Amino acid sequence: MAFEFKLRRLVEFHETDSAGVVHFSNFFRYCEITEAAFLRSLGLTLHRADHAWVWPRIDAQCSFLKPARFGDELEIHLLVVRKSEKTIEYMYAIHVLGAAAATLVAQARIVVACASWSESAQSLKARPLPPELNELVEEAPQDVLGSSLRRVGRVG
Amino acid sequence: MAFEFKLRRLVEFHETDSAGVVHFSNFFRYCEITEAAFLRSLGLTLHRADHAWVWPRIDAQCSFLKPARFGDELEIHLLVVRKSEKTIEYMYAIHVLGAAAATLVAQARIVVACASWSESAQSLKARPLPPELNELVEEAPQDVLGSSLRRVGRVG
Amino acid sequence: MAFEFKLRRLVEFHETDSAGVVHFSNFFRYCEITEAAFLRSLGLTLHRADHAWVWPRIDAQCSFLKPARFGDELEIHLLVVRKSEKTIEYMYAIHVLGAAAATLVAQARIVVACASWSESAQSLKARPLPPELNELVEEAPQDVLGSSLRRVGRVG
Amino acid sequence: MAFEFKLRRLVEFHETDSAGVVHFSNFFRYCEITEAAFLRSLGLTLHRADHAWVWPRIDAQCSFLKPARFGDELEIHLLVVRKSEKTIEYMYAIHVLGAAAATLVAQARIVVACASWSESAQSLKARPLPPELNELVEEAPQDVLGSSLRRVGRVG
Repeated sequence: MAFEFKLRRLVEFHETDSAGVVHFSNFFRYCEITEAAFLRSLGLTLHRADHAWVWPRIDAQCSFLKPARFGDELEIHLLVVRKSEKTIEYMYAIHVLGAAAATLVAQARIVVACASWSESAQSLKARPLPPELNELVEEAPQDVLGSSLRRVGRVG
Repeated sequence: MAFEFKLRRLVEFHETDSAGVVHFSNFFRYCEITEAAFLRSLGLTLHRADHAWVWPRIDAQCSFLKPARFGDELEIHLLVVRKSEKTIEYMYAIHVLGAAAATLVAQARIVVACASWSESAQSLKARPLPPELNELVEEAPQDVLGSSLRRVGRVG
Repeated sequence: MAFEFKLRRLVEFHETDSAGVVHFSNFFRYCEITEAAFLRSLGLTLHRADHAWVWPRIDAQCSFLKPARFGDELEIHLLVVRKSEKTIEYMYAIHVLGAAAATLVAQARIVVACASWSESAQSLKARPLPPELNELVEEAPQDVLGSSLRRVGRVG
Repeated sequence: MAFEFKLRRLVEFHETDSAGVVHFSNFFRYCEITEAAFLRSLGLTLHRADHAWVWPRIDAQCSFLKPARFGDELEIHLLVVRKSEKTIEYMYAIHVLGAAAATLVAQARIVVACASWSESAQSLKARPLPPELNELVEEAPQDVLGSSLRRVGRVG
């Protein structure tokens, strides 16, 4: 059973803006890229071409603590915070890796729903998490979540 | 004194994804585009090339209620929720305008700080809101904020 | 019969990069946005949700002459260069509008094919231009094309 | 002396559009990402924060042969076609890597200039290629260029 994943990725030039830093909207993309890599590592996918399995976002939040710049190496750490019948809540800590230490630059939380295409309704409909996902993905233990939150300075 | 702004904008094709809808990260861009237009309408700017005045994002959150699709006409409604010495909190309601009615598709909240470039520190430093902004921008009255929240179904 | 279209659009902050200018990839998006507006102005569309009518790009080229910056007002001028049985070639001149004069910042050429989804092949297949488009869109006259090219310094 | 570089990269979900394929503008970004990785592999950089060394694009062209989709693994192959006093021309072949074979999906050509910030002119000025780059980067031999072009079906 898996509840976390770490992805490393360089900041690409087109992701920066005139302030010389990564545009804030791209941190949400980094999170989704990591979610896709997490699912892929389990033999699952973020998106099936037949739309039998897609993951619309329900809610997304990110706190921006420090800037990241072109060429910075990011480590994006995903934790599964909560699984409900039809949704998953992920938490993310994004660090810039330096020669001596890693700097926390952003922390995010994203809630996604599982959905599939309904031909009759001509729209996406929420559906229960697929059994193969339920067998492979679990919520992170409380001590891992607590430790992660403490490290990022949100909890005592 | 101004506390709100409305922008209309068509969904562009490159903003959609393989699920056939606007990628969630782009809603954050719609909000920033509206903030830029709001400031511009007051003779102010989101970004000065000399970095004497820039607006790093501190926190951003968005709830995604319905999909938006290529060609949809969006109305993005900005409200100033709170002004502090160095930050502004904006609230956004994003509707898709239809022939008969408007559909609320997303609601967001973004906190920005005012900053300027410090040559000595070689980094951005928070600074008080510029006087010309303080003279032009105010918090939305409670009844406007409350009415807006009620309309979007978050409050009684 | 239509053979040209002009769109005005402000440069958005997220479209700039750390060099302080519009990232070159976004000029291709400006062209497509203008193509979509051109088709829309004729009651046509760049993309039908049922994939009966989509426009994959075959070839795209852009020359970058001057930078464009956040807040600049762009005018994107589309001309229909050539219509074949299944493709259209567009030419674009992109100017930054200033108080006194307009500055040509980029010139592009994009060839698109008309295609529709083939259920049997599970892929897009080229198809003849739709009759409703053929009735509305024509190639720009040689003198208009020539004049446009002369203005941008490529001919004579 | 180096004249080529290969980068592997998964297609990210936000890079796709409603047609279910990678948006064409992103192929230009894949090329730039590879150029950045090429320079980085030599201890050089695509962009210095002090703007002493930046690479504005002069011209970019891409032919789109086949679609790429979410999750596809791309191999982007960069070749140095030409070095002049102040510019470099790169050629790119982009393949989707499959279980059995690789499929060429796009071929591009991008010309970049070396520039640095001129405080007096308040703009970027072209400058000769830096000596450290001239010592490390060379044009690909004719037989390599020819072979690459033949493989992609452009030359006899």
